[in-house]
Parts: sequence; C-alpha cells; structure tokens
Amino acid sequence: MNFSSKLLEDAVNEFSKLPGVGQKTALRLVLHLLNKEQEEVDHFGNSVMRLRKEIKHCSVCHNISDHELCDICTANKRDRDVICVVEDTRDVMAVENTGQYFGVYHVLDGLISPMDGIGPSDLFIDSLVQRVATTPVKEVILALSATMEGDTTLFYLYKRLKDFQIPITTIARGIAFGGELEYADEITLGRSIVTRVPYQSSLIK
Amino acid sequence: MNFSSKLLEDAVNEFSKLPGVGQKTALRLVLHLLNKEQEEVDHFGNSVMRLRKEIKHCSVCHNISDHELCDICTANKRDRDVICVVEDTRDVMAVENTGQYFGVYHVLDGLISPMDGIGPSDLFIDSLVQRVATTPVKEVILALSATMEGDTTLFYLYKRLKDFQIPITTIARGIAFGGELEYADEITLGRSIVTRVPYQSSLIK
Repeated sequence: MNFSSKLLEDAVNEFSKLPGVGQKTALRLVLHLLNKEQEEVDHFGNSVMRLRKEIKHCSVCHNISDHELCDICTANKRDRDVICVVEDTRDVMAVENTGQYFGVYHVLDGLISPMDGIGPSDLFIDSLVQRVATTPVKEVILALSATMEGDTTLFYLYKRLKDFQIPITTIARGIAFGGELEYADEITLGRSIVTRVPYQSSLIK
Repeated sequence: MNFSSKLLEDAVNEFSKLPGVGQKTALRLVLHLLNKEQEEVDHFGNSVMRLRKEIKHCSVCHNISDHELCDICTANKRDRDVICVVEDTRDVMAVENTGQYFGVYHVLDGLISPMDGIGPSDLFIDSLVQRVATTPVKEVILALSATMEGDTTLFYLYKRLKDFQIPITTIARGIAFGGELEYADEITLGRSIVTRVPYQSSLIK
C-alpha cells in the first residue's frame, strides 16, 4: 500500500500484526481512531499498555487477575476441593458464563502440542500436581477442547493424577443442545451412541 | 462476560469500540497482545496515540500527511493542473495503487449525505472551488463511489464547477474487468449497453 504518511503507515503496520487483521482492516481501524478525540485515543492506547504492565496471574490457579490471588480463588462461596482444569482464561470465562460450576479452576496456559513445540514443562502441570498433592481435593474436572491437543493433554494429565486416588472426570461430549442429528459429524454421533446414558427427564429443558 | 480482571475488562471494552470488533474478537486481540513483550505493546499503543497527536492534513488537497503539504502536492512529476476529487484518504491510496494517474488530488473528507446530516459545508467543497478559481486547472476528475451519496455529491460538485468552463469528468462505470455478464446487476449492465464505446483493442489486456 502507498501511504501518504509515515505515522499512518506505522499505526497500520502495528494493527495488522494482530491476529485476523489484514492491512485493509488495519487501515479502517486506524482511520476510525483518527476521527476520535485525542482523549479517547489516549485511553485506548493506555488501556492496553497498562494491562500488559500491571496484569498479574493468580498464584494458585494461574488465571489472569488484578491481584496476587484471583477473585474466584478467594471467594467464600466456591468449593475449593473441586478443581476444573482449563486451557486458558477464555475457557474460565466460558465455564463461568454457564453459571453451572461452583468449584475453583486451574489454568494450564495452553495444551500439549508437539507440532508447536509445546511440551508438558511449558504448561502449569507441575503446579496442578503439587496442588492435588498438598491440598484436599475431592474431584478434578478436565475441561479441555475436543481436539488432538486437548486429548493428548487429557491423557497426560490422567497419567500424572491417577495415583492420587481421586475422581478424575471430563466434560460430557455428544450432540450439542439444539443440534440436529443429520448435521452432526459421524465421530460425534457414533461416540454419543456408544456412550449413551439413561434418560433423565430433569436434564432436558 | 465475566472478566477476572478490571484491567482486562477495560482493554477489551476499548477494543470492542472499534468498528466490526465484538467482545469476543476484542478479547482475542487483547490476549494476543498480553502474550507479547512490554516493548511491543508499548509500540502498539504509542503508534496510534502519536498518529492522532502529530498527524497533519495537507493544506492544499486535505489528504493525511506528515507535513504541511503532502508528498503528492509537492512532487515535481505530478500534473498540478489535473485534480482528482475523492471521498477520503483510502480512495487516494486506491487510485495511487493503480499507477495510472499522474495528477494531484482533492480529498472531500466525506460525501453529501442528508440522512447522516452531512451537508456541503461539512466537506472541503469550498476549498475545491477556490482552488479551481485561483490556480490553472485543465481538468477535474470526480472519482466518487457509485452510491446514492456519491451521485448526490457528483451532481452538487458539477453545479458548483460548471461555470469555470473546464472539462469535468467522472471515472468510467460498467462491467468490471474479469466480470461475467450473467452475474452483473441489471442497472450496471443496462447502463453499460447504453453508454457503449467504440472498440479499442489496446485497452483490452
């Protein structure tokens, strides 16, 4: 692209480094900000620099937090002996949004992925094992994505945790609510037949 | 969304004010930046604040520029007596990218749009008339979008400029190169038949 201004080119290049943002989108976003008041643009720029500088990770569950311990780990109402293991902070938010979970979390900060060079030592797995070993835990729920990396991590975590003699569960997999059978993929449909469960009318809403 | 951090929520809210960016996309972008080095994030934030603070508009053509006069207006090679009138800086870049235009520009900074409350006085139209009246101009090319707002602006500019007795042209409209007739809309196809031109083999590449 031929930019009429070096400053404009700089800002567009910075925006186009963001995932899923190409040069044309970057230009649109930058021109949008250029039409805003200086104050608003400063607030935009500072919010992300301040986030990077001041953000902390909870020393227990490794979730993003403003403090040394996150709000969930310090909340009185949460069951501290049920740990839900998730990939990242987005998954914490997804589970929280369901309003169906009242335990605490453990954020791995990724999944085992040999293709990307991410091994168990790059994730917060040792600290999970430590946590299970040193605090009273009634159940570990592995809530990981149903992908190759998720399954690999699931298997590895199971191996590391199985000797502690506590229930290790995974979230249920099957046909999504509202999903029509004819559009389901064969693997999901096949597995959901094999792992069929007794009918419980209370669960169908 | 349930954010685990006020700083994170702030940054996500700022990003989701951008056009076409929802909360989920904003979260993805912010978490991406959170994984970068502080230096990179500072560069990102500063680039846009600096742009807003230091950007200038060319005093002749109103294009975005680093200086009082833009690079195109000061270039020796450009024909200063041919003016291409465009909506905004993106259209300057689009025309420049063709490599087919060697005159100068005039950026209106929008189009007349009564629906959005944008009238002729909100645009750089008076300064265009002034420019045509005070400098030697051989041709004014109106390169505006083929929309209702573009046509309204076209008509208004024609009325303001026609008494100067200089050629006023508009960019050609018709079937796009590579476009198949069966997929063209009726209006474009109809007009391109009515405004048919003699065959020039040199123009078909």
